[in-house]
Amino acid sequence: MNAVSKVAFIGLGAMGFPMAAHLQRSGFDTTVYNRTTSKATEWVAQHGGSMASSPRKAAINSDYVFICVGADRDVRDVVNGPSGVLEGMRAGSVLIDHTTASADLARELGQICSEKSIGFLDAPVSGGQAGAENGNLTIMCGGDAAVFHNSRSALQSYSQQCTLIGPTGSGQLTKMVNQICIAGLIQGLSEGLEFGRRSGLDLELVLETISKGAAGSWQMENRARTMTKDEFDFGFAVDWMRKDLGIVFSEATRTGSPLPITKMVDELYKKVQQRQGNRLDTSSLISLLRNYD
Amino acid sequence: MNAVSKVAFIGLGAMGFPMAAHLQRSGFDTTVYNRTTSKATEWVAQHGGSMASSPRKAAINSDYVFICVGADRDVRDVVNGPSGVLEGMRAGSVLIDHTTASADLARELGQICSEKSIGFLDAPVSGGQAGAENGNLTIMCGGDAAVFHNSRSALQSYSQQCTLIGPTGSGQLTKMVNQICIAGLIQGLSEGLEFGRRSGLDLELVLETISKGAAGSWQMENRARTMTKDEFDFGFAVDWMRKDLGIVFSEATRTGSPLPITKMVDELYKKVQQRQGNRLDTSSLISLLRNYD
Repeated sequence: MNAVSKVAFIGLGAMGFPMAAHLQRSGFDTTVYNRTTSKATEWVAQHGGSMASSPRKAAINSDYVFICVGADRDVRDVVNGPSGVLEGMRAGSVLIDHTTASADLARELGQICSEKSIGFLDAPVSGGQAGAENGNLTIMCGGDAAVFHNSRSALQSYSQQCTLIGPTGSGQLTKMVNQICIAGLIQGLSEGLEFGRRSGLDLELVLETISKGAAGSWQMENRARTMTKDEFDFGFAVDWMRKDLGIVFSEATRTGSPLPITKMVDELYKKVQQRQGNRLDTSSLISLLRNYD
Repeated sequence: MNAVSKVAFIGLGAMGFPMAAHLQRSGFDTTVYNRTTSKATEWVAQHGGSMASSPRKAAINSDYVFICVGADRDVRDVVNGPSGVLEGMRAGSVLIDHTTASADLARELGQICSEKSIGFLDAPVSGGQAGAENGNLTIMCGGDAAVFHNSRSALQSYSQQCTLIGPTGSGQLTKMVNQICIAGLIQGLSEGLEFGRRSGLDLELVLETISKGAAGSWQMENRARTMTKDEFDFGFAVDWMRKDLGIVFSEATRTGSPLPITKMVDELYKKVQQRQGNRLDTSSLISLLRNYD
């Protein structure tokens, strides 16, 4: 490894843009690529570093290549083919995918990388845009222990917690567990808050009273007050949640995992999309209960 | 008020037994009544104080009368009729009902007490048997502000948080919000954990990684590890949860509150009862997912 590691970051969305900035600020010589070029231009103007005209070119001579794009298909687009990162990466370097994607994709990439003596980690994150900006994301990793330890100093530039869960795919599967827990939790919280509103309770007092007890949750602490004010124009969008739940259901079919309320909540998210569009925060589930049918 | 207040405590179950002991230990001259006399004998042997042969006799000359029994019918049994507490209570004293019961019962008792110039608080608790034993329950009160403030020093002998939410019935309605939030939360957590188990994940590592983030909850911190070990022989029993949800559904009919997943979870609890009996902790929902149909 050189004194200054050269890294590539592919995908400058709401998450990737600040994550790549943390790498550059932590002393990694960072080259970025983004499908919409103007974002990459803006990133270089703000943070220095370099930009490349293809994923392959960004990856050339990089010790680590990070990907943070939308979904399985987007990952394949920037990894494979003549302009994909694998064409540029050298043996001994490491590919790290931060996209929330399927465990099958992780296994597929792990296999391809292995054949080229490239390390691979599936490494989806949680903590949202605020976590990416403040550098305190949680990263759930799947892959080889040596590759993980070798990658930690780079990952720590934007995470407060970074854990190797198990073999390739385990990061994605852990993120799925996370999303399943959140779905039921938000709907339960929504039903409780709407019941309380219709009963004429002072919800601020109710939340102060119950939030430290057995009903308490991160969602209650961080979303209940905006939910009671019908404020949903921020946070983690419903369409991303439905994309993640789609991955969950594919995987659940494979393992036979029963998900009765998670499936019901997905149907409710579909209704939110139909009535109010795709961009509202996941806490917007409560809006359906105002006029439920 | 006398230098030493005289109080009565009706109902020495898993909650009432230690709650009454905290009152006696805090300097309240406590007289207990319990339907099964042996419990009252045991309580006096352990804690001093007195026992009475009827709710009415316990209530005579008491400044405060506390009730902590099973359900609406049990409350009516100890309040009304010739041997009920109302026959013994004097004007200016206060009746406090810790039973998780309907808001209608609270309003009915509030009205009856008001006619006799007796103060009334509906005051269901959360925190479970451990909270009752350690004296750190949360108490959600409905009633008159002056009565509430007058009662605080007694209530503080077994609570760490005691809040007046609003008029009579508000304590019960707040407890219902609490139970609704818990129902969806536990089922979401169950589906997440079972999905993770079937995917072969190390659930201890998964929980360490996700429990501080957006999926985090009291239930994840305090129940997930026993859930993964199929340990449910403790805590808050399924039959009590179903009793509470029954109250929730009655109230929801009155206000038109939609509770789609809460209703689904109640059906799942019913299955737990049919397959495994009534006494398991509410976290036993996950046991259904092992062999789901």
